[in-house]
Amino acid sequence: MIKWTIKNQKTVFESNIFKVRSLACLHPVKSIEHNFHILDMPDWINVVALTEDDKFIMVRQHRLGTDEFTLETPAGLIEKGERPKTAALRELMEETGYKPKNITLMKKLYTNPAIMNNYIYFYLATGCAKIEKQRLDLAEDIEVRLYNKPEIQAMLQNGKINHSIIITALCLYFMGTPIN
Amino acid sequence: MIKWTIKNQKTVFESNIFKVRSLACLHPVKSIEHNFHILDMPDWINVVALTEDDKFIMVRQHRLGTDEFTLETPAGLIEKGERPKTAALRELMEETGYKPKNITLMKKLYTNPAIMNNYIYFYLATGCAKIEKQRLDLAEDIEVRLYNKPEIQAMLQNGKINHSIIITALCLYFMGTPIN
Repeated sequence: MIKWTIKNQKTVFESNIFKVRSLACLHPVKSIEHNFHILDMPDWINVVALTEDDKFIMVRQHRLGTDEFTLETPAGLIEKGERPKTAALRELMEETGYKPKNITLMKKLYTNPAIMNNYIYFYLATGCAKIEKQRLDLAEDIEVRLYNKPEIQAMLQNGKINHSIIITALCLYFMGTPIN
Repeated sequence: MIKWTIKNQKTVFESNIFKVRSLACLHPVKSIEHNFHILDMPDWINVVALTEDDKFIMVRQHRLGTDEFTLETPAGLIEKGERPKTAALRELMEETGYKPKNITLMKKLYTNPAIMNNYIYFYLATGCAKIEKQRLDLAEDIEVRLYNKPEIQAMLQNGKINHSIIITALCLYFMGTPIN
């Protein structure tokens, strides 16, 4: 197996969330050239958060990708220089007002190596207590909803939770360690 | 909960795989304006494929997003007008040369509603037999590797499989229906 050689690269588009980078590549064996486009993204965090009485803390919001309301585990972008765990605690607090007793990393994964270069850190936050109000950006509208375990399992089954990253987070929680 | 009103939208960047669309939005209650960028993508398929003797058919390839070799379940883009199941069978055949006895949809999910508008269809293909050689695009280099269940479980644990979408596919398989 041979890697492409990146001969040249440049940013060809920039939004406030991601950049598109164009990679001019050469295959060292086949001697063919190919142009790839990848997305430069900040790393993400995603938090499966449970209250002191084991309710799942979920957030519902309008998402512009699909133009629908989506039910999700709290999540967000890691800020420049911020530690992943700090980002997880910050996003959980901002979006829901809850603070956990314990927080542990379940898994650090690549989001999508084919076109993205970032990691997503999946955390488990337990013993969460509501200690303050939400602190949302002006452009955020987030509704907090609590569910028990059978309700979450039913929504995984019936498609009410239909966001692949949220399914990943909840599967990591339900499968625990080891996966068997 | 209120949805943003999309006042205006236009494609601001286009690659051979995705487009970036800029959405000028107005919040009907707060009366604030906000600009979102989303990615128009074709739908994707992903296939957990098992041979007749229950080996997992995995593919290893250089991915430019991370510039690393990644171990994945076979996957690809659905072509215009193609049925998802047809795409799953086609990609499995092209990337590996294997054809299944049975193929079933495990789950249809949004990839990432925050910034993408596409679906990913997760299939389970069983009783796969190698009936021909790979048929790769000129720009593809894909190595086929077979693993038994304990090897896959070990690689989920130890991070050798570290691609979130592949984790989702394998979790859906291992958790089965119902999720409990």
